[in-house]
Amino acid sequence: MQFEILKKDNTSRARLGRCQTAHGVLHTPAFIPVGTQATVKAMTPEELRDMGAEIILANTYHLYLRPGHERIRRLGGLHRFMHWEHPLLTDSGGFQVFSLNSLVKVSEEGVEFQSHLDGSRHFITPEKAIAIQSALGADIIMCLDECTPYPASHEEAECSLQRTLNWSRRCRESHRASHQALFGIVQGGMYADLRRRGVETLAEIGFDGYALGGLSVGENKEIMARVIGETAPLLPENLPRYVMGVGMPGDIIQAVREGVDMFDCVLPTRNARNGTLFTRWGKMTIKNARYAEDSSPIEPECPCYTCRNYSRAYLRHLYFAEEILAFRLNTIHNLHFYLAFIREMRQAIAEDRMDGFMQDFNSRWEPSVEPERNPSLLSLPTGKRISLAARI
Amino acid sequence: MQFEILKKDNTSRARLGRCQTAHGVLHTPAFIPVGTQATVKAMTPEELRDMGAEIILANTYHLYLRPGHERIRRLGGLHRFMHWEHPLLTDSGGFQVFSLNSLVKVSEEGVEFQSHLDGSRHFITPEKAIAIQSALGADIIMCLDECTPYPASHEEAECSLQRTLNWSRRCRESHRASHQALFGIVQGGMYADLRRRGVETLAEIGFDGYALGGLSVGENKEIMARVIGETAPLLPENLPRYVMGVGMPGDIIQAVREGVDMFDCVLPTRNARNGTLFTRWGKMTIKNARYAEDSSPIEPECPCYTCRNYSRAYLRHLYFAEEILAFRLNTIHNLHFYLAFIREMRQAIAEDRMDGFMQDFNSRWEPSVEPERNPSLLSLPTGKRISLAARI
Repeated sequence: MQFEILKKDNTSRARLGRCQTAHGVLHTPAFIPVGTQATVKAMTPEELRDMGAEIILANTYHLYLRPGHERIRRLGGLHRFMHWEHPLLTDSGGFQVFSLNSLVKVSEEGVEFQSHLDGSRHFITPEKAIAIQSALGADIIMCLDECTPYPASHEEAECSLQRTLNWSRRCRESHRASHQALFGIVQGGMYADLRRRGVETLAEIGFDGYALGGLSVGENKEIMARVIGETAPLLPENLPRYVMGVGMPGDIIQAVREGVDMFDCVLPTRNARNGTLFTRWGKMTIKNARYAEDSSPIEPECPCYTCRNYSRAYLRHLYFAEEILAFRLNTIHNLHFYLAFIREMRQAIAEDRMDGFMQDFNSRWEPSVEPERNPSLLSLPTGKRISLAARI
Repeated sequence: MQFEILKKDNTSRARLGRCQTAHGVLHTPAFIPVGTQATVKAMTPEELRDMGAEIILANTYHLYLRPGHERIRRLGGLHRFMHWEHPLLTDSGGFQVFSLNSLVKVSEEGVEFQSHLDGSRHFITPEKAIAIQSALGADIIMCLDECTPYPASHEEAECSLQRTLNWSRRCRESHRASHQALFGIVQGGMYADLRRRGVETLAEIGFDGYALGGLSVGENKEIMARVIGETAPLLPENLPRYVMGVGMPGDIIQAVREGVDMFDCVLPTRNARNGTLFTRWGKMTIKNARYAEDSSPIEPECPCYTCRNYSRAYLRHLYFAEEILAFRLNTIHNLHFYLAFIREMRQAIAEDRMDGFMQDFNSRWEPSVEPERNPSLLSLPTGKRISLAARI
């Protein structure tokens, strides 16, 4: 993989970059839609490309359990399997092992967990995480990490960091596929000294890119911003920097200003399925009675397929009727929002106006309480009315 | 509405026709995809048009209850509401009132029923059925009928027929919107004399087209074919003939040979959501373990989007993962199958070879047991694993 910084913003640490992978180019800052089970929920690959998605993420944990990585290898690899012949990233499965399981046994050797599908027990080592991702064949793969919970004491976070660093070394050593870029993941809880040690050790081992993990796990926005601000600038300058599982548009702006290049998050897709839509002014809940006879689109100026053709009233009807088209149309709008947002941000960096971009955003965005990438929200839903929408 | 018979097959009673509605043309024989709640499940209007759908059906019963016909009228009518500016048909709600309700009270005045959504009680008269359909604004609307259950004694069927005829007269009298074609529905159970009386009385009242109702309600295929064969040829020659809720491709061929012009059925869409796919050789269950590593498409020669881009193995994975894309891709294939099938049949009529078309079909199609349009299958699912797929 080749990463090139094309331009630096002179109002912040933001960078404009270009990443050449084995399956094509992605421009940074990049937003990566999440395709957990080898599909970005409700979307086709063509729809994603039309919206400007250059890279998507699939979850190693889910694909290892079903349909199985060896099966995907025999079927020609994940790109062919899911009909996405463009850049693809797989996480290591670490985050899901810890967030979807109540019975996890971690040892220096690896992590034992129970399948959320059938209760079967599995053991993943750093070497196995690399082998699985090699079988899947994504362009960017991730080291196995232990996702430090929040809150964690300094001692707990240090212990967890050390394990992640040991595992990272073993991932690096077992990694053979030169067409796959391998990223290390910095843990260290919310402690600046641990994050610094994480960065230094990983840089010493040497990776093709670096991620910040263990964020958006329940800490508040100020803490998250502080950790990113303290850690991102320490990362090797000329390689891509990726903050995993973040986040809200405002969080992304802050992180980009600290020099972060890549983001993935389920918010646009999951919120879409829960009837929450992103707009320039904040989030809109399509369930709201005020939209029952509202013939205007979600956002009058939005050029997405949904806004060009459907009213809020119709989207509200589809949502209550639990129609598949509700999930499709809402997801199209939300992903379009995120991808347009990130394109506008790239333009702002190109024109040295990240500061203005942030001020514009903050002056119009109405923040509200919303689900973050919180492990407690990732557990399987249990019978609530909205669980149908959430689950599919 | 103008209906023109372009050509008659000289090997059967099949006719090739052209129907000009207020929102454009449909060619007959026509297959009408079902869009119960103002959306053909999992599809966009553009996808439907691309597959060759010229007309779709929406259910008055569902739209009356949610979001409400007056609301749809205020939003500009059903075409605009659902972004389908092409021919549209609404049924009268009769079939759903009887099949989705256990507590129905029928009187000469009308029918009282309980909403399947919230248990609220409603009373529909023939006049109200027309008023609701007038608010929705479809191009073809249907008279309120009492769907005779199966089995029914001659006396029961006669009583039910008489009520339907009385209601049909009231529908005709209250119908004002000249841009909406009004079809009468022939009931009469499985009794030839009653069906004949139904046809004669409706023809005397005079409608823009005639439908056979009360079929595919549990009777076997031989009985259904007999009733269609006895009744369809009695219908006015120069107006469209519509068999409601039918059916399997073989049933459609038989009915076309008896001179039927229009069909609607949930089979292609509902089967898609249950993982059952239509092929030239019969039905395929994508859940089958034999497809787990099958890299071929559903049908190698099929030009649909699904077959051009995805393997059986991937479709099986998506199905078990309960992914929305499974419903989309399966529905695309099944609707494509039905619409291509009906186009090929039109071509066969144009070339006077309906006999050969039927023989070809029968020689390769492997029949198997399958869900018919049976009221017992239309009740709301209750907690089975596949109920998720069936419900959405």
